[in-house]
Parts: sequence; structure tokens; C-alpha cells
Amino acid sequence: MKRAFYIGRFQPYHNGHQSVMERIAPLVDEIVIGVGSAQLSHEVNNPFTAGERLMMIAAALREIGVSYHAVPIEDLRRNALWVSHVYSMTPYFDVVYSNNPLVIRLFSESGKKVQTLPMYRRETLSGTEVRRRMLAGEDWRSLVPDPVAAVIDEIGGAERLRAISSSD
Amino acid sequence: MKRAFYIGRFQPYHNGHQSVMERIAPLVDEIVIGVGSAQLSHEVNNPFTAGERLMMIAAALREIGVSYHAVPIEDLRRNALWVSHVYSMTPYFDVVYSNNPLVIRLFSESGKKVQTLPMYRRETLSGTEVRRRMLAGEDWRSLVPDPVAAVIDEIGGAERLRAISSSD
Amino acid sequence: MKRAFYIGRFQPYHNGHQSVMERIAPLVDEIVIGVGSAQLSHEVNNPFTAGERLMMIAAALREIGVSYHAVPIEDLRRNALWVSHVYSMTPYFDVVYSNNPLVIRLFSESGKKVQTLPMYRRETLSGTEVRRRMLAGEDWRSLVPDPVAAVIDEIGGAERLRAISSSD
Amino acid sequence: MKRAFYIGRFQPYHNGHQSVMERIAPLVDEIVIGVGSAQLSHEVNNPFTAGERLMMIAAALREIGVSYHAVPIEDLRRNALWVSHVYSMTPYFDVVYSNNPLVIRLFSESGKKVQTLPMYRRETLSGTEVRRRMLAGEDWRSLVPDPVAAVIDEIGGAERLRAISSSD
Amino acid sequence: MKRAFYIGRFQPYHNGHQSVMERIAPLVDEIVIGVGSAQLSHEVNNPFTAGERLMMIAAALREIGVSYHAVPIEDLRRNALWVSHVYSMTPYFDVVYSNNPLVIRLFSESGKKVQTLPMYRRETLSGTEVRRRMLAGEDWRSLVPDPVAAVIDEIGGAERLRAISSSD
Amino acid sequence: MKRAFYIGRFQPYHNGHQSVMERIAPLVDEIVIGVGSAQLSHEVNNPFTAGERLMMIAAALREIGVSYHAVPIEDLRRNALWVSHVYSMTPYFDVVYSNNPLVIRLFSESGKKVQTLPMYRRETLSGTEVRRRMLAGEDWRSLVPDPVAAVIDEIGGAERLRAISSSD
Repeated sequence: MKRAFYIGRFQPYHNGHQSVMERIAPLVDEIVIGVGSAQLSHEVNNPFTAGERLMMIAAALREIGVSYHAVPIEDLRRNALWVSHVYSMTPYFDVVYSNNPLVIRLFSESGKKVQTLPMYRRETLSGTEVRRRMLAGEDWRSLVPDPVAAVIDEIGGAERLRAISSSD
Repeated sequence: MKRAFYIGRFQPYHNGHQSVMERIAPLVDEIVIGVGSAQLSHEVNNPFTAGERLMMIAAALREIGVSYHAVPIEDLRRNALWVSHVYSMTPYFDVVYSNNPLVIRLFSESGKKVQTLPMYRRETLSGTEVRRRMLAGEDWRSLVPDPVAAVIDEIGGAERLRAISSSD
Repeated sequence: MKRAFYIGRFQPYHNGHQSVMERIAPLVDEIVIGVGSAQLSHEVNNPFTAGERLMMIAAALREIGVSYHAVPIEDLRRNALWVSHVYSMTPYFDVVYSNNPLVIRLFSESGKKVQTLPMYRRETLSGTEVRRRMLAGEDWRSLVPDPVAAVIDEIGGAERLRAISSSD
Repeated sequence: MKRAFYIGRFQPYHNGHQSVMERIAPLVDEIVIGVGSAQLSHEVNNPFTAGERLMMIAAALREIGVSYHAVPIEDLRRNALWVSHVYSMTPYFDVVYSNNPLVIRLFSESGKKVQTLPMYRRETLSGTEVRRRMLAGEDWRSLVPDPVAAVIDEIGGAERLRAISSSD
Repeated sequence: MKRAFYIGRFQPYHNGHQSVMERIAPLVDEIVIGVGSAQLSHEVNNPFTAGERLMMIAAALREIGVSYHAVPIEDLRRNALWVSHVYSMTPYFDVVYSNNPLVIRLFSESGKKVQTLPMYRRETLSGTEVRRRMLAGEDWRSLVPDPVAAVIDEIGGAERLRAISSSD
Repeated sequence: MKRAFYIGRFQPYHNGHQSVMERIAPLVDEIVIGVGSAQLSHEVNNPFTAGERLMMIAAALREIGVSYHAVPIEDLRRNALWVSHVYSMTPYFDVVYSNNPLVIRLFSESGKKVQTLPMYRRETLSGTEVRRRMLAGEDWRSLVPDPVAAVIDEIGGAERLRAISSSD
């Protein structure tokens, strides 16, 4: 069995993530998905809990039909230990797909095989842009898979983001 | 969608856990499985990493065919915060199945619905007994689902347990 | 017995805090005061220890005569657990008074009753302004209750702030 | 102003503690009370939260009428830093009253004045004995001040202790 | 340059450690010495701070004349990350000398070369025995190198151990 | 024996540090060197592990020939405990040499003797400038002692810095 690892913060999961998953899915048997900064939530740049992000991932991947493991990864703030931390929390994987320079470097120093995989239309497809639109009251739903929009609506995600970012 | 929560340490996953899953599966749409003491491994009572335990769970549940989320839960050592910690790391769930008095009490104090669900043949079906047999070189494979035994053999689990428990 | 909860960093306690306490005092039997970011001190934005801030609060509230509990609350950096953290460290309270959007949101999501209570003359009555005046050698004493000024003078507070903010 | 420091776990506050407070009260202006192992609760040896213990202390000291500060102190598990930790969380104090060898040694090494103060009838007046009676369904109320018994009854303390200690 | 790694708690450094160093010294250019459980002190089983243990090591190795690095290593309580933790805190080393089964296993799983090196007269030459004699007022000085005894006497080590272990 | 304490981050060790060591060396018997923010590495402002920085210090001080102890010091983020943290990890020292206002203040409040010691040609001799030149591909080797440049080259330091700072 061949497994690939991909890590993101998924604040929230958007069409760029979906595009990545669609490209990785045919190449491996299973995808191991790290949900980064898992301990953060209710912050302007990290509004959703790890559990809510797991629900988004499940909803989105049901559409693709790929086999996967989604695992919350808490920040350690110790880069030299981070790869061991990831290994300890995840099923064994053969290859890492990433476009993050630090992730690439840390896995490379550990001897793991890394493949770069550019994000699709990064300028408009980013968590930052989705959150900006939520705050501005603009259309954000077109940037995320439909089942993810449904999850966010169910938990009142846009409302939460606006509440915690209102000026004191 | 109705979800149940069940938490264990799964050191390792054994037939008692499988029996619990088989009884919960028909009652809900999805099971949220907490992998407790996720940060521990390579200890006599906690030999396996969270990632290895996720592989055991995946192998065992493939046989049952139930939809599930398996989530590592690190110990906080602060019982008053533990329920919030679990909520933050997991998809929303409606009911807790447990036979652990502390788990039952903590969820009850938070207002969550809890169902007790006794373990099946607990005297011989426990992680303690499986680990004892691994150390003694006795038959442990009959106490775990076949696909779990395969995972443990692949990672050299029994050998690791004997290595770390040898006297100094 | 009816208790209200109010949280601040109190770096230092100033007349704006005093005004809040005077408005809450008649409405409840006791005030539970959270001393936020309790673990921080000797920083330009957090010069005073939690213990020093407890002394300021005691000195200021002696003038009002209200019954209260003052409790240091260390930062968790996990917003989803913060309300449980506060509950575990404080006597039971019925209502939260706050004008901080995150505090309001977190307590609201937990089901606790929250009342907003605008700060009095916030532009000049803020910890930021008091610390700016201490650093600039301007009059800061008029912005804090007299007994608080006495506490700060006794511990050499303004001198400490100037020492740690001097350029390297 | 002269302040004394006294630290205990107060699981729960009992007549032995009350006796100590009555003996210290006439000697100083204020008592600084550290609530040790503040982060623990819902354990057989530590059933009550720090906040619940603050309520017990307030109820008991109302009878004595002494001026005090009660401050939760979380465990650090680093003895060499513990005295600085206590100092950072508490108002300044002049003398420590303790009969705990480690507390005495740590404050002595830091140069603080320490007075020993033997517990009153320790064999029957201990948190261990109170909890044992709660579990056994025996009379525990006579071992604690009446207002403390009222607090424990209000929060269902004995019931909680029995629930978390029931065998799995 | 060839470096060996050796880790101990050194509570205190004794003749068994000295014997190990004398055997490793001729085999390598430098010894990297990990001072384990560095964060612990003032406990019956861990009376000395990491800094005090560094002074013992320096005093003892001056007699052997070997080149070395002594590095405090704090406990992580996460075995799967421990090897990375050690690597991040120490100069690069080629080989591990150890007789501790867990240390041997963890380095072996990481692919590092490990040599076992039995302790010399372990029954009487152990930190446990040295501490027992200190507590009992028996001769402990003959079990440690003379310069180590001098360090322990200078910091009042035996007196500290007796103070913290006296019954409450 | 007289010991001095000096602390830096040494990211990397440069000629300014060497100049400081040369000035302190004749004044004391041994230098205790704290390697600050020891837990950080693989960051743009903190590229090197504590272990790599220990190798740089050893290489540089071999040229001066001074007796020293180099000790990694992890950040606590609790300034009020920081001096006790340093004391617990280091051999006893008599005097602190520093030009950092916070370090000076914290040791002064603890009663330790502090000497200021200005950096040599700080504008061009700083870790910031060395890292800037590494990133820009300019000459950085002339800013560090030759043996330090050799260590950095051996671990591929400049390459690592460029890898982790490349834009995503």
C-alpha cells in the first residue's frame, strides 16, 4: 500500500485543497492529511477547531472518493522535532506532497521523499481570501466545495469570524 | 446524521474493542473514535504510537464497514478541561458510549448524553492481557482481529515491547 | 448569591477598571476578577507580575468596599478550552461583564449570559496610555486610583518599565 | 503591613486548616493562601477544582474574619523554579508557615523566613481521611467547618468523588 | 572527529559513571554527555539540579582528561520524539554507549549505531545506593570520585537530601 | 574559582561574540555560556539547533583557550521565573556580563552582580547581518571566526537558511 502525506491548516478547506487532493488521489492508495495548528481556533486567522476542519475534509473527500486518514497535528514550536511529531501521530507514508519551504526542508533533512505540487490559482484560492470575503460579507461560497460551505453554514462559521474580529 | 463517541487507548486494538464497535455501528451513522494518551509510545503499558494505533483501527473497521473518524487525543492532565479538549479535536457527536467512570462523569457534568456499554469478556480481552502474552511469548494473536495482528507484525510490535521491557 | 465575572490584564489597574467595578458592584453580591495573561511580567506591555496586580486590585477595591475574588488566569493559547479553564479556576458566577469581542463570543458559545459594559473614556484611560506616560516620564498617577499609584511606587514599577524598555 | 504565606491542596478544606488559620491570623495583617495543585480536579485524591476550593476558603474564613488573598498555584514539576513561581503569583509576604519538608527547604534556600506550625490532630484531620469517609458513606461533615460542608453539598462533591472512584 | 554519546541522570555522578567514561575515552575523540531529567531537582530520587550535576561531571572528568560536551536534556514524556530532542541539543555524534533498554531501542529505531557497555559493580555502584547512604548517614564518599564528593559537600548535598526526605 | 555568565542566541556565533569572550576570559577562571532560545531552529531568525551552536562555540573557544561551560537554555516565556531557570541549569557563577536590558534587570532584581559589556562594532557584527549576507549570497565568512565558518559549512548552514526562507 502506498500512502502520501499532505499538510495544511484548512482555515477553511477550499477549492485549492480540493484540486490538490484530486491530483494526489490517482497516484497513491491512501492520503494521510495533517490538520496543522490543530490547537488553534476562534482566532481571526484560525477561526475553526480541528474537529470542524475534520468535518470539512470528510465532506469534501466524499465527492472524490479517495481513501484517507485525517489527523490533527498540534504545533510544537520546535522545528527540529516536528517531523518525529508528525510520524508519531500518523500512519506510515511513503511520500510527502507540499509546496511549503519549511515542510519540504524538514522532511528532506529526515530523508523522506518530497514532491512539490503547486497550488491552483493561489492568488484567489487561499484561506486568507476566503476569510477576507467572509468578513467583508462578499461571496466566499464559490471558493470552497459545496459540502464544505454546508458544514461552515451549519456551525455558523462566517458569523463566528465576524464576531471575534469586531473591534473592541 | 447521528454520531457516537468512543475513546480507548488501543494498546493494542483487540477483540473487545471490535465487539464494542460492532454493537455501536448499527445504532449511529458514524463513530468518532478517540485514541487516548496519543502522545505516549515505547512504554511497557503504551508500546504503540498514535499513528500505529490509527492503522490498527483502520484495518479492523474495514471488516465491519462502518463509517468513522479516528482522532488522536493527547492527555491534558487537567480533567476540568478534558471534555472541551475532546470537543475541539473531533467532529460533533450526539452520544458517548463508555464504561470508564471518569469519562462518564466528565461528559455527564458537561451535559452530554452518555450510554454505558460493558466490555465483552473483559478478564481475557484487555490490552493488559494482550501485552502480557506478547512479553511471555504466548499466543496473543487470537485476542485481536486478524488484520490488527498483521499490522502489529509488520511494525515488529511484539519485538519492540520485549526490547523496552528487558531489565536494565 | 449572585456573582459577576470580569477579566482584564490590569497592566496596571487604572481608573477605567475602577469605573467598571463601581458600576458592577451594586448589581451583584460578589465580583470574580480574572487577572489575565497571569504568567507574563517584565515585558514592555506586561510589566507587572500577577501578584503585583493582585495587590493593586486589593488596594483599589478597598475604596469601593465590594466583596470579590481576584484570580490569576494563565494564557492557554487554546481558545476552545479557555472558558473551561476559567471555570476551573474561579468560584461559580452567573454573568460575565465584558467589552472584549473574543471573551464575549467564547462565553456566549458556552451558553453563559454576557453583558457588554463599555469602558469609560477609553482613549485616555487604558493600560497602553498609562505605560506610555510612565516611559515618557509624564504624569501617569492621575490615571490610576491613589492606592494603586502607591503600590506601583512601592515596587518601583515605573523604574522597572523604563529599565526593560531601554534600547539594547 | 505584615503578610504570612500558607499553602495546601485543600482537597477539601478541613478543621485542621481552620485551626492553622486561627493560629496565624493574630500574628499578621493578611494571610496569602496558595491553593496547590490548582490544575487538578476530578481525581480520587484531588476531586475539587481550584475554583471550588476558593469557595470553601471564602466560606471558612468568613467565620474567622481575617484579611486574606487566596491564589491558585499550578504545579510546575520543577522544584528549582517553584519559589519564583509562587512569588510571581502572590502579593509580597514576609514569612512562610508550613510543616511540609519540601516547602520549608525550598523557601529556606531562597532566603525566606519559614516558621513550622504542626497540624492539629493530623491522624483524623486530613484530606485523606475526609475523602475516605466520603467514599465509605461515613460522617465527613464533622471534620470540616460547617460553611465548607455547605459548599461541598451544593456542588455535589461527595457524589462526584464516589462516581469517579467506582471501579471500571 | 569521532564522538560518542552517553546519557545518565547523575544523581549523583559516581564511580560507575567514572568507570564508563574511562572505558569510552580511549575509543573516541570527544564524549557527548547527556544529563537526563535535567528539569528535576530537590526530589528524593533527583536531589541535584542540572547545573550542580554539570559541576560534578567537570570535576570528575578533569581527572581523566578527556574532551567532552555535557548537555542538560529535559524530559519530554514523548518517547517517539526523544531521539530528535537529543539530536537537537547536542553536537553530532557517531555512536551511542548505553545499557538502558529504552535508550538502546529508541536510538536503534532511528538508525543510530549503539554499543552496550555494562555498568561496573552495579549492585553497590548506583545513584540509588549513594542516596541511600546519604540518607542513612553512612559512608557515601567512597562511592564517588573525590572531586565529586567535594562538589557535593560544597553545595550541602547530603543535608539537602535529608531535609526534603524527612517525614511530614 | 570565579565564574562569569554570558548569554546569547549565537545564530550564529560571530566575531562580536569572540571579542566579548576575549575580554571576559582574563577576568575569571571559567565562563558559563548560556545558549538562549535553545529549542528554536530552522527559522529564518534562528536557523541553527542548540547542538550546532555548541559546536560553533567549542570551535571558536579552542582558539582562545579559556575554560568554559556551554549550556542550552530553553525559553520559558515567564520572565519572573527565568533567573531561577538559568540558575538550575548552570554551574554556580559570580557575575553576569550582558548588554541586554531585560537580562540586566532580571539578574539585578535577583540580587546578582551584573557588568555591562558593549558589543564590538555592533552595526556590522550581529547575527542579523550574518544571516542577511547568507541569504543574499554575500561574504559572511569574514564576520565569524574561521573555525565557526568551517562548522557552518560542514552542516550546510547557509543552504538551510536559504531553503527555509524561500517564498512559498
